[in-house]
Amino acid sequence: MRIGIVGSGAVGLYYGARLQRSGQDVQFLLRSDYHAIMRSGIRVRASDTSFQVGEVNGFLAPEEIGEVDLIIVSVKSISNQDLPNLLTPMLKTGTIIATFQNGLGNYEFLKSAFPKNPILVGACFVCLNRVAPGVVENYYLGSVVLGGDKLEREAFSSSVAAIMESARIRCRVSEDLHQLLWEKLLWNVPFNGLAIAAGEISTDLILSSDALRNLARGLMEEIVLGAKSQGLEVEIELIDHLIQETRSMGAYRPSSLVDFVEGKPVELESIWGEPLRRAMSSGVELPKLETLYRLLKILCERQV
Amino acid sequence: MRIGIVGSGAVGLYYGARLQRSGQDVQFLLRSDYHAIMRSGIRVRASDTSFQVGEVNGFLAPEEIGEVDLIIVSVKSISNQDLPNLLTPMLKTGTIIATFQNGLGNYEFLKSAFPKNPILVGACFVCLNRVAPGVVENYYLGSVVLGGDKLEREAFSSSVAAIMESARIRCRVSEDLHQLLWEKLLWNVPFNGLAIAAGEISTDLILSSDALRNLARGLMEEIVLGAKSQGLEVEIELIDHLIQETRSMGAYRPSSLVDFVEGKPVELESIWGEPLRRAMSSGVELPKLETLYRLLKILCERQV
Repeated sequence: MRIGIVGSGAVGLYYGARLQRSGQDVQFLLRSDYHAIMRSGIRVRASDTSFQVGEVNGFLAPEEIGEVDLIIVSVKSISNQDLPNLLTPMLKTGTIIATFQNGLGNYEFLKSAFPKNPILVGACFVCLNRVAPGVVENYYLGSVVLGGDKLEREAFSSSVAAIMESARIRCRVSEDLHQLLWEKLLWNVPFNGLAIAAGEISTDLILSSDALRNLARGLMEEIVLGAKSQGLEVEIELIDHLIQETRSMGAYRPSSLVDFVEGKPVELESIWGEPLRRAMSSGVELPKLETLYRLLKILCERQV
Repeated sequence: MRIGIVGSGAVGLYYGARLQRSGQDVQFLLRSDYHAIMRSGIRVRASDTSFQVGEVNGFLAPEEIGEVDLIIVSVKSISNQDLPNLLTPMLKTGTIIATFQNGLGNYEFLKSAFPKNPILVGACFVCLNRVAPGVVENYYLGSVVLGGDKLEREAFSSSVAAIMESARIRCRVSEDLHQLLWEKLLWNVPFNGLAIAAGEISTDLILSSDALRNLARGLMEEIVLGAKSQGLEVEIELIDHLIQETRSMGAYRPSSLVDFVEGKPVELESIWGEPLRRAMSSGVELPKLETLYRLLKILCERQV
């Protein structure tokens, strides 16, 4: 399968490298890491699965890549407005576009920008940091959960899941796309958010503080309520499960914290703003999320 | 009237200096500012009312002050445990103890520590910063509202109000001590709290951000609910009034922000923790306050 990676940050480099290593024909659209990757390839460091892909098909423009069968979109959601220009040169009839992005609204955006192509969502439950150009560290193997509209899910997700599995990426298909996205928020809202708002701290410190662990739990309970306001049943037991999983991640710095510390735009609206607005427009208040969102908003505005 | 000031920070120095200037016999218990004040007195700077009191009765130990008629307590609430030792040498039968402190719990503490003395509460709606040893800036004249138990209020608050008024400190007596304290929280919870949690900002920036102004308002609405959970009617109109008043304060740095930035302990429990606990023990959730409190708690813990 000819695969294009658009958004070669930690997520794109990691999954692209794994897919290439398993024999797929992967093309990377690169920017800042172009020279480093063309020289030294991509390195993935993990306690058990360190590896390197040496010869990388890297490009600076989507026209050089040309048509592909699958595009994995892993740009930050704040750059979505660039996607029509970036993706169009890589599309043919039936090219699957899979958003491996955080938060709400990306699926709807792609759906309206590319109405003729199948759109899948890939929720990546994984811990990754890009620590240098072309170098990704993986702290928690996790899994990818795929979803889409019923038709697309049935027609395309099994083929994508198959290539993920052959690259030893744990993968499953979710029946409900929207529930899947809220389940991902269940982690992202508290851990990405508190990592910034509590003074630039890693996930282990969130869990070791009674105040913050309780607050994380309270935010997760609100996300369950938010999902419910959209007619979705996120199981409350998932909260305990995610807290346990997060313990095993150690001193992880979530992607939004990394962005914030590096002075880059944070995915404020897709992770915190959009779920809050959707719940409120259904008449459900999420006051802890609202408080966190507003604090993050001003912290990010003052950052720039 | 012989008056002792215990806690010679911005509040104690300001009111003490005004009282001395109006002819009262004021004794200051000093610590860090002792030498500066014994040398140069106390200076109060304000756009309209700058003045200096040159000869100050300053002491390093309460035993040197001896008995007084009125003690104004203006230490931070985190130092309340020192008050029994500090106040006892200054007490005689009938010495009025007035707490000019922030938050909840100070009145109850003094009441149980000094059951034989009349205890008054003075809620200071004022903007003060101590900018150098013995130098206080006053940005907003404001007023002092006095309260106490019914008996104490009737017996003692009029005499204290009279000396305040003669020192041109606007002063009124509140019928309900506890409502008075929640009304003060109405300002302290959002403005002291957000000034820290939103990245060390002054009150003008809280008001100029839609996100933060709305959050301040949401926190104030929760304080009204918290008061209600205690059987107290804080009028919702007070919110608009306080936001207007805060506009006139300009770029004010609330006392908790000053403490936080200087690495000093913040009055976390009396301002945020205690009202949250009182409301929750009455079965009322205040989720925005809870979120802010927990974030402040970790920010302060990490500060030390």
